[in-house]
Amino acid sequence: MTDIIHTFAGNPLDRADAERRDPDWLDAAERNPHSRYLPMWRLNVLIDAGAGDRLGWLPPERIAELDVQTPPVFLGLDGQGARFALDVSTVERPVATLGLSEAFRFEDSRAAGMTLSASEAGILAQSRSQLAWHEKHQFCSVCGTPTNQARGGHLRVCPNCGAQHFPRTDPVAIMVISDGDRCLLGQSAGRLARTGMYSALAGFIDQGESIEEAVRREVREEAGVEVGAVRYHSSQPWPFPSSLMIGCHGDALSTDITIDPVEMADVRWFERDEARAALAGEHPTLKVPGPVAIAHHLIRAWVDGSAERPE
Amino acid sequence: MTDIIHTFAGNPLDRADAERRDPDWLDAAERNPHSRYLPMWRLNVLIDAGAGDRLGWLPPERIAELDVQTPPVFLGLDGQGARFALDVSTVERPVATLGLSEAFRFEDSRAAGMTLSASEAGILAQSRSQLAWHEKHQFCSVCGTPTNQARGGHLRVCPNCGAQHFPRTDPVAIMVISDGDRCLLGQSAGRLARTGMYSALAGFIDQGESIEEAVRREVREEAGVEVGAVRYHSSQPWPFPSSLMIGCHGDALSTDITIDPVEMADVRWFERDEARAALAGEHPTLKVPGPVAIAHHLIRAWVDGSAERPE
Repeated sequence: MTDIIHTFAGNPLDRADAERRDPDWLDAAERNPHSRYLPMWRLNVLIDAGAGDRLGWLPPERIAELDVQTPPVFLGLDGQGARFALDVSTVERPVATLGLSEAFRFEDSRAAGMTLSASEAGILAQSRSQLAWHEKHQFCSVCGTPTNQARGGHLRVCPNCGAQHFPRTDPVAIMVISDGDRCLLGQSAGRLARTGMYSALAGFIDQGESIEEAVRREVREEAGVEVGAVRYHSSQPWPFPSSLMIGCHGDALSTDITIDPVEMADVRWFERDEARAALAGEHPTLKVPGPVAIAHHLIRAWVDGSAERPE
Repeated sequence: MTDIIHTFAGNPLDRADAERRDPDWLDAAERNPHSRYLPMWRLNVLIDAGAGDRLGWLPPERIAELDVQTPPVFLGLDGQGARFALDVSTVERPVATLGLSEAFRFEDSRAAGMTLSASEAGILAQSRSQLAWHEKHQFCSVCGTPTNQARGGHLRVCPNCGAQHFPRTDPVAIMVISDGDRCLLGQSAGRLARTGMYSALAGFIDQGESIEEAVRREVREEAGVEVGAVRYHSSQPWPFPSSLMIGCHGDALSTDITIDPVEMADVRWFERDEARAALAGEHPTLKVPGPVAIAHHLIRAWVDGSAERPE
């Protein structure tokens, strides 16, 4: 129930649903000198070190010089005017082509999210998810025809069959399961296994499944542990490419672990003191995710006792 | 935090993630005489009145008689064996072609969901969402090439560019906002306006947005009301075609209503006594959704006082 502002949440823009349905308004906004564009190159984001490593917003006249066919995506409004994201991936050397100083660079979005302010990381999350979606949805999944962007990027329409396609957001259940003073953390078979890090178990919510059912199924699949009560904690948009992390705590009904060897390298019970030390970076071997990830906050809430079953 | 079993949740099948990755196992399961198929025709589900209006499961030998090119979707395992859903939409008169008695009929899935047991409604939710997704995703959204089903229907793969496409689940925020002894309910501009029914406000969660942010944005857009604290209540899979309804309560920070005339026909504050009477079907004019919908349970929890701000 805690309303934590996670990294990648906190986007302050007004998404302006009414304005984005007005093609004339959008057309004028694209050319308005008060509008600003955030260029992204192969899903890396433009950062302006001259402004203290902030997002590299550019005015329309600078964008006009680029040979980019992809229409911009309207992100929303702030006090200054309209904000757009623009995919400049087809430009070979965008910093040079845009005539930008050495203060500008394109940076990996995940790394940028860890240093930007909450507001700017939130805008980055929206921008990256939207551009990644358009990149992968140029064709109609119903009939195979190239589609056209509409509503400033909140829609793609098929000129052949008329199908409307909306950006997708994939809900993911992520959970810290506890058995008294122990919590269940795992190391997935891929990236985490190489870092030696343990994190909360997680998985995509299936079709025809509630959040609570997904928590129980994923823990059963990955660890062979049965879960009873499930409690929602908080949620985090995770723009790689477009997940909604739904963070929960749950009570174990069984304790023997049988891992899924395809998905997981290891799953273990950790004592509360071990988890507390790992959060502080003071455990000799156990590493857990940093505060950029909701997993960190789920573990912390359990360590602090704020995830206990209510009486 | 309440773990209510909503309609369309409660699917008892083991989704058998390991088995569905094994093509040989799937192939054998499709022909195993203990396996059962649930035919759906244009997203209507086969119901067997002879068995007391239960799902109309058929054995493989009966399915083999059908001229259907679409591969079945593996739903999961129960104590008897493998369960599949099969889209028979290309068969003109499937009840006659299958040689079924008059006890069998294809029924609208929403209507069926209101009368089936919790378990069978949950299986129906999974079946309908999966078949609807395959129907609308025959082509690769990256390159426009026809795709092939894999992993028993949990994946489609493009033979041209190699892109993997997974079924989508669309998270929706649905919320009852309160101001002391009044709650905010609305009538959307479409179907609800014609029925005279008022329900919880709701909307799709955008990319780069937390659940709590989506609740506040939707209420601001649809009603012009500002929301402070947001509390998660429960979630419901809603297979039309594939939403995950995430039910919340929230506290109003403002009370003047300005509706979005495109989306909403009306939004109003209702007194607790009015909402209580409407839930019981005893209000002279106000109608609210029935127990099939999470909105009913969100309103009821607020009326009963179980959605109050914790002290």
